[in-house]
Amino acid sequence: MEQDHKLVTFGETMIRLSPLGHKRLEQADRLDVHVGGSELNVAVAAQRLGLKASYVTKLTRNPLGRMIANKAREHGVDTSHIVWTDEDRVGLYFVEFGASPRPNTVIYDRRDSAIAGIKPGEVDWKAVFREASIFHTSGITPALSESAAEATLEAVGAAKRAGLKVSIDLNYRARLWSQARAREVMTELVEQADILITTEEDTKRVFGIERESYEEVAKSLAERFSLEAVAITLRETMSVWRNRWSAIVYADDDIHRGPSFEIEIVDRVGSGDSFAGGFLFGYLEDGPAAGVRYGVAISALKQTNPGDLVWATREEVERLLGGGGLRIVR
Amino acid sequence: MEQDHKLVTFGETMIRLSPLGHKRLEQADRLDVHVGGSELNVAVAAQRLGLKASYVTKLTRNPLGRMIANKAREHGVDTSHIVWTDEDRVGLYFVEFGASPRPNTVIYDRRDSAIAGIKPGEVDWKAVFREASIFHTSGITPALSESAAEATLEAVGAAKRAGLKVSIDLNYRARLWSQARAREVMTELVEQADILITTEEDTKRVFGIERESYEEVAKSLAERFSLEAVAITLRETMSVWRNRWSAIVYADDDIHRGPSFEIEIVDRVGSGDSFAGGFLFGYLEDGPAAGVRYGVAISALKQTNPGDLVWATREEVERLLGGGGLRIVR
Amino acid sequence: MEQDHKLVTFGETMIRLSPLGHKRLEQADRLDVHVGGSELNVAVAAQRLGLKASYVTKLTRNPLGRMIANKAREHGVDTSHIVWTDEDRVGLYFVEFGASPRPNTVIYDRRDSAIAGIKPGEVDWKAVFREASIFHTSGITPALSESAAEATLEAVGAAKRAGLKVSIDLNYRARLWSQARAREVMTELVEQADILITTEEDTKRVFGIERESYEEVAKSLAERFSLEAVAITLRETMSVWRNRWSAIVYADDDIHRGPSFEIEIVDRVGSGDSFAGGFLFGYLEDGPAAGVRYGVAISALKQTNPGDLVWATREEVERLLGGGGLRIVR
Amino acid sequence: MEQDHKLVTFGETMIRLSPLGHKRLEQADRLDVHVGGSELNVAVAAQRLGLKASYVTKLTRNPLGRMIANKAREHGVDTSHIVWTDEDRVGLYFVEFGASPRPNTVIYDRRDSAIAGIKPGEVDWKAVFREASIFHTSGITPALSESAAEATLEAVGAAKRAGLKVSIDLNYRARLWSQARAREVMTELVEQADILITTEEDTKRVFGIERESYEEVAKSLAERFSLEAVAITLRETMSVWRNRWSAIVYADDDIHRGPSFEIEIVDRVGSGDSFAGGFLFGYLEDGPAAGVRYGVAISALKQTNPGDLVWATREEVERLLGGGGLRIVR
Amino acid sequence: MEQDHKLVTFGETMIRLSPLGHKRLEQADRLDVHVGGSELNVAVAAQRLGLKASYVTKLTRNPLGRMIANKAREHGVDTSHIVWTDEDRVGLYFVEFGASPRPNTVIYDRRDSAIAGIKPGEVDWKAVFREASIFHTSGITPALSESAAEATLEAVGAAKRAGLKVSIDLNYRARLWSQARAREVMTELVEQADILITTEEDTKRVFGIERESYEEVAKSLAERFSLEAVAITLRETMSVWRNRWSAIVYADDDIHRGPSFEIEIVDRVGSGDSFAGGFLFGYLEDGPAAGVRYGVAISALKQTNPGDLVWATREEVERLLGGGGLRIVR
Amino acid sequence: MEQDHKLVTFGETMIRLSPLGHKRLEQADRLDVHVGGSELNVAVAAQRLGLKASYVTKLTRNPLGRMIANKAREHGVDTSHIVWTDEDRVGLYFVEFGASPRPNTVIYDRRDSAIAGIKPGEVDWKAVFREASIFHTSGITPALSESAAEATLEAVGAAKRAGLKVSIDLNYRARLWSQARAREVMTELVEQADILITTEEDTKRVFGIERESYEEVAKSLAERFSLEAVAITLRETMSVWRNRWSAIVYADDDIHRGPSFEIEIVDRVGSGDSFAGGFLFGYLEDGPAAGVRYGVAISALKQTNPGDLVWATREEVERLLGGGGLRIVR
Repeated sequence: MEQDHKLVTFGETMIRLSPLGHKRLEQADRLDVHVGGSELNVAVAAQRLGLKASYVTKLTRNPLGRMIANKAREHGVDTSHIVWTDEDRVGLYFVEFGASPRPNTVIYDRRDSAIAGIKPGEVDWKAVFREASIFHTSGITPALSESAAEATLEAVGAAKRAGLKVSIDLNYRARLWSQARAREVMTELVEQADILITTEEDTKRVFGIERESYEEVAKSLAERFSLEAVAITLRETMSVWRNRWSAIVYADDDIHRGPSFEIEIVDRVGSGDSFAGGFLFGYLEDGPAAGVRYGVAISALKQTNPGDLVWATREEVERLLGGGGLRIVR
Repeated sequence: MEQDHKLVTFGETMIRLSPLGHKRLEQADRLDVHVGGSELNVAVAAQRLGLKASYVTKLTRNPLGRMIANKAREHGVDTSHIVWTDEDRVGLYFVEFGASPRPNTVIYDRRDSAIAGIKPGEVDWKAVFREASIFHTSGITPALSESAAEATLEAVGAAKRAGLKVSIDLNYRARLWSQARAREVMTELVEQADILITTEEDTKRVFGIERESYEEVAKSLAERFSLEAVAITLRETMSVWRNRWSAIVYADDDIHRGPSFEIEIVDRVGSGDSFAGGFLFGYLEDGPAAGVRYGVAISALKQTNPGDLVWATREEVERLLGGGGLRIVR
Repeated sequence: MEQDHKLVTFGETMIRLSPLGHKRLEQADRLDVHVGGSELNVAVAAQRLGLKASYVTKLTRNPLGRMIANKAREHGVDTSHIVWTDEDRVGLYFVEFGASPRPNTVIYDRRDSAIAGIKPGEVDWKAVFREASIFHTSGITPALSESAAEATLEAVGAAKRAGLKVSIDLNYRARLWSQARAREVMTELVEQADILITTEEDTKRVFGIERESYEEVAKSLAERFSLEAVAITLRETMSVWRNRWSAIVYADDDIHRGPSFEIEIVDRVGSGDSFAGGFLFGYLEDGPAAGVRYGVAISALKQTNPGDLVWATREEVERLLGGGGLRIVR
Repeated sequence: MEQDHKLVTFGETMIRLSPLGHKRLEQADRLDVHVGGSELNVAVAAQRLGLKASYVTKLTRNPLGRMIANKAREHGVDTSHIVWTDEDRVGLYFVEFGASPRPNTVIYDRRDSAIAGIKPGEVDWKAVFREASIFHTSGITPALSESAAEATLEAVGAAKRAGLKVSIDLNYRARLWSQARAREVMTELVEQADILITTEEDTKRVFGIERESYEEVAKSLAERFSLEAVAITLRETMSVWRNRWSAIVYADDDIHRGPSFEIEIVDRVGSGDSFAGGFLFGYLEDGPAAGVRYGVAISALKQTNPGDLVWATREEVERLLGGGGLRIVR
Repeated sequence: MEQDHKLVTFGETMIRLSPLGHKRLEQADRLDVHVGGSELNVAVAAQRLGLKASYVTKLTRNPLGRMIANKAREHGVDTSHIVWTDEDRVGLYFVEFGASPRPNTVIYDRRDSAIAGIKPGEVDWKAVFREASIFHTSGITPALSESAAEATLEAVGAAKRAGLKVSIDLNYRARLWSQARAREVMTELVEQADILITTEEDTKRVFGIERESYEEVAKSLAERFSLEAVAITLRETMSVWRNRWSAIVYADDDIHRGPSFEIEIVDRVGSGDSFAGGFLFGYLEDGPAAGVRYGVAISALKQTNPGDLVWATREEVERLLGGGGLRIVR
Repeated sequence: MEQDHKLVTFGETMIRLSPLGHKRLEQADRLDVHVGGSELNVAVAAQRLGLKASYVTKLTRNPLGRMIANKAREHGVDTSHIVWTDEDRVGLYFVEFGASPRPNTVIYDRRDSAIAGIKPGEVDWKAVFREASIFHTSGITPALSESAAEATLEAVGAAKRAGLKVSIDLNYRARLWSQARAREVMTELVEQADILITTEEDTKRVFGIERESYEEVAKSLAERFSLEAVAITLRETMSVWRNRWSAIVYADDDIHRGPSFEIEIVDRVGSGDSFAGGFLFGYLEDGPAAGVRYGVAISALKQTNPGDLVWATREEVERLLGGGGLRIVR
């Protein structure tokens, strides 16, 4: 039961390698292979709920590039607009799973990936946006390189011209660019956006916004950038493997609160992205209150799956929202 | 150090397949293989404690059927009365391990298994019950098919005639039959039983019995069906991976309470069955108070083992009952 | 670089479970999970070479059903015409890998699968065949049940009416139907076909055709059924893990011979299907000589991949056809 | 379909640990766990074919000891006469799988195992041999220690007195005792035996017998020790992973030759033992010609299973003897 | 950035085998391989922080012996003073990971290891102690055998003569010797020591010291044995997988308290040893307050690594001491 | 028993990732982790035989960099001269294991590794070469970058000045540089060398030398570059998993032939490097005939180990040279 809407997302997906059994990377003899990247994660969450999604990136024609496109298609995401190149390389990242008091660690090896070398003009956005209703990217994509920042601005401009809504996840990555540069570029992007998804902390780091409550932060962002909706995810870290998770959205002069779940974490990487995918689905389906509910529920479930991508179904998300409980489902 | 008693159990065992590392079934590339079925689980728990057990079922002559008999024998359970057939098939079930807020999920693929096709007359119960002192089955066996219900009634009747005690675990499975049909058949079975093992919830679903406390439920069941003992297991689900577990038994006009354990769950499937096996052992050894103590302790340990079958020893069970503590045992 | 042609295939895909490390199924503690079924295997081989493929089947709406569709899409195969149902079940099969003198063994547990219950009218063939140029199925599909045989005949008829070529792989499965019934149904199907893919042995078992050479067999089939091409795959089994593999095709009154490869087998299941996929690609691209070359090469490579599905690329197939050699490719 | 005969075997079983994927032990991060010991291997092969087997050993009451008894029972072998002790320890051995030109390597860590400490009088042989028809042990058991040698002699004597046939596998282990001591003890044992199973090489090392052909060796042994049957296994090692395997038996003044198989080795440890189990089954069933046929076939199949124990069925053995071929069995 | 100091440790390292996925040893099909032994664990923790360490033991010249030396060197520990022998054997131990209410279990199989047979005179301590500043051993080494006790006394005497500080971890192992014998030998050893590391419980068992608080215990030990520093580790076991961990040290007439961490345990074996390694590093670097801080932090991190050996870096330890937090480190 | 000689090698080591079970990289869910690089492989082979080796490279201070140094030390190789940097990155490479007719495939992802950025002056060669007798590098090191070529020339010059012999493995990598540039740089390097190790094919590609036999090639190289020894490895590829392997060396106006082994390949990556390590050991020990014997034997054994590094011992190498045979070593 798919929606009539169609989402387009744009960004980098990397091969993700992680040691098994809580081993440190330094002692690893085997690595689990997943694929993950913020905007693909969003597309997968949306598609699984029923919001058709197309994912745009630039990939090297080699087994690792193919693996990324394969996994997107495995979840039903359209990959027909991916730009293929013979240029190296496919970015990688390593995840070490911690345990209190040792936090999870991510080591990126993404420099000089094919998508970092993307330039305006390489994607035929007009074709991509045909029949699409919403475009989503995050602050990671423009942070990849100067030319990637230009290509992101090109994409957002094209989306607006094609009549799409634009959704941005702030997603600040300190290893990729400075706060000053992030502020400059993200301001330009968010000014064209309709929807902003972020955390209190990123808002502070990128826009320097601090308020007494996250509700105030959301309202302040909505006003500064004339946004129709601002969603903020909320995580309380009781321990590495036990978190509390929720979100709010400010829209229509109102705060809509999502449910709050205590989570036995299996893999928290990509939870914000699953929230975004679920939020966009719900928002397009039935407004901000539905958005924050679907967003929190699917991202809570995502944290109980290994890998960046969520494997929940719409039925499972709705069961959780309906107060499903923890008994064995037989 | 075995008891002089001998237990006979009767029911279905399936091949159990479960993804590793909390993967969803949909994303599984490998599956762990176990065998499990309520009545085999009971036999194994009893046998490991020292109550000799014989397991009766009907199995297809193929590697999966042999695997089930092998695993029963691995734990010392007698398999000489299993009915072998060339008819397909061996039932399967899939377990997905969840993590809060995602519950564990069980998907059955057991339709048309060999045991579901069993009919009265296929087992020589007279031979089976020679030298046996107690017969146990659960509400799953008669739920498998009409003919399996008849075969179960035949078995219970034969057990009574042979002078055995009869123990029934109510074990209601909504996917297998309706509450109405369950009530009808289970009433006929429990009326012939001496011991009933159940949960508050199953009692309500099958017999419509609701009382202010589970103690009252047990008493009420004992009275309605003239049972010598009614045991009720108690689980508090703090999270998918942290539960509190205990049980009570009503017998001799008295409530006997088992110990209560906080459990770091490894695999909770089969805990009620291990309780039953431990309870029968203790009950035959030293009455209801011993029964509930052995039952709770072995089933608490079972929940820290992967698979449906318990691997504890009598010595470990008694160490736990003696207040063993959590220090490393060297 | 895709062809303009589009292939539609129709049949059953099962979940395939196989023990690791040459273990017998009876001793397995883990099972590798793959998906496989003759017509999906064909679609994947074709799609990987550049012949767009759409796969039609009937699947249960559960994680196993979704896994099958996911894996088809992972390889780029269109799944939009799959019929989804709430009826059980997804068929399974078990593969035990042997070693000389122990042959590989396959145990099917496919009875009562959703696709076996398919009836004429459940698939909108008119929509499926829009823009398609060729339809392929095998002798397994009509063997699943009486209604599946009718549905297969319906599909072939619709394909002819829609102007598609029809390709049939004889694929006789003795466990599914008798030779007499196979002959009856397959005669009706092959009479409508343009292309037949088979082995000398299946031809003998189904149609009773025996000739002095496989070239004569191919010619005889072409004549009896007025086929434009008959392909016969040839396997010489030096040992379980070392085979020689080739094929011939009779078309245009001529025998076209494929290359012959000595193969260090990794997994031979599905090789005939990969041949069919490669053959159809090459045949549509450049006639029977190209067909037999692509067919043999991609199916030789398939036998060096674990799983039923082939993971080779067109570039690798052509490198092999160009005499690639066995040196490390760096 | 079991025979009326019953076999008793006596010896040591160890926990066997082997690195995966051809890793050297020095580089191993994981070890596969099996159990294996010559006389248990014999019992399992016999039992799987239908010759009831009881295995006698002495085991430490700990998880490793229990694992050995469990695995015996898993295959249906009777373990009720095992002697349990609180004394340490369970012997271990490590297997490194080689590849030409690196041979397989076995490292024993069996010193001071519980069975090595066995003394005459610890086993109630009279009870053990009740209803038994044949007793089997190998040259490893008396080599474990002086007291184990005495216990072996006690067992053989008791077997003869109880009217059992006695079967001995020469099995010389140079690490356990000298050739001189082996000759002394084995002479005493074989003089009481009815059946001897060996290799040309062991015969030479223990008894100093060299003849022009292995047929002559067998005849010479039969004559020297008044044996009713002497079986000699024959291995040609083309490479570590490809061997040719056969056997002959001298009995009734005649040489009976078993079939000869080219084997793609998966795990050759325990092949001689599987031969012995199969030989004894066939010999009791139908004389020496049957013995050598069953012996060669089951031990050929054993070499395609991981672990010391064979997992073949009587049906599979007979299929191989009937010229089963290497096609996939579906 | 290494210190100028050099640590020498002396004791036994075993091959450690543990089932995966919380399996009981009795049900294990695979075992993870690690190496571990108290004094090697100390050396590794120290070396990783920057205190050069040399490890002395006696090892059999076989793959298991080499593995132990390899793993020491992998962490940078000097192995040039290891005594190599052709005598068997390398000790083993098995770890079963529990879950509440089942504690972790350790089964030793270390009897008759090469190091247990060490005698005075086998190590050239004069050469070993050249350029070294501190010697560490534990109560396990003298407990291995009478001759090992003598060799330990020889080592401590040589260390004192060479002007080294001597550090002892009390580490009482009830399976290896009696409390009476432990008290006798450990008194002689601790009287020559400068630093004692222990737990309240071991102090009570070995020296019979009980005080109102662990601070009093430490002070009392320091006074009785004229020690310059006494460290006591403190563990609160909320559950098998959740512990609180800290330590204190008494030195210079003062109690220095380490930080306290709530730990999500991955593997707690070897935590006391990592504390000792970290303590010695910090103590030599900057006195007792630094010692207890480094000791607690590195041993807290150790408990989140699989295996006995710690894989943390000095930078990670200092990040934790600086209040690193549980956010993902990117 | 170490030699008095000491070897220094210089080059890049990468993290090597390879799918399990013959999976294609595109289908991998897990990757085995090894480390490998030509010159480290040489150092390890030499060190294991008894020729002390020190390995020089430039590594990033992160877990991957540490893993490379750890693994070198695990084999006893000195790592004290490694240059550590905060600059990214550690190079990676992927190995896909093929099976006939699919060759093994290597995909490099080594661009911009730390060692590629090395410049003259970063290594204190004078200190490195103290007490060393021979320096070895390969044609890969200068191919990494212009500055790496300069650093290699610096190293060779310093080695000559310090009185070391210089050994070069030609090792042409077409992906790293052109034949023209390789010829230019390698000529300059080989002119300063004493020993050259190569294959007929690389000689042709780099120096354009073609002769009637490889003996002539070796002689011609020795003459052109005034070398004291030229070794040529010889591989015959019967299939991907079955090769024949040998080598010759030209020295003292004579051809010395190594033994020839048929190899059941487990992992052929790094065989040439193990040859070099074994050759240098034997050559320094006892001249060219010994060199070629040790070189061929250790590299034959290496091909039966997973990973780039060899795990054989001197004893095993000599057993093979003594005609060890393929029987199980017990």
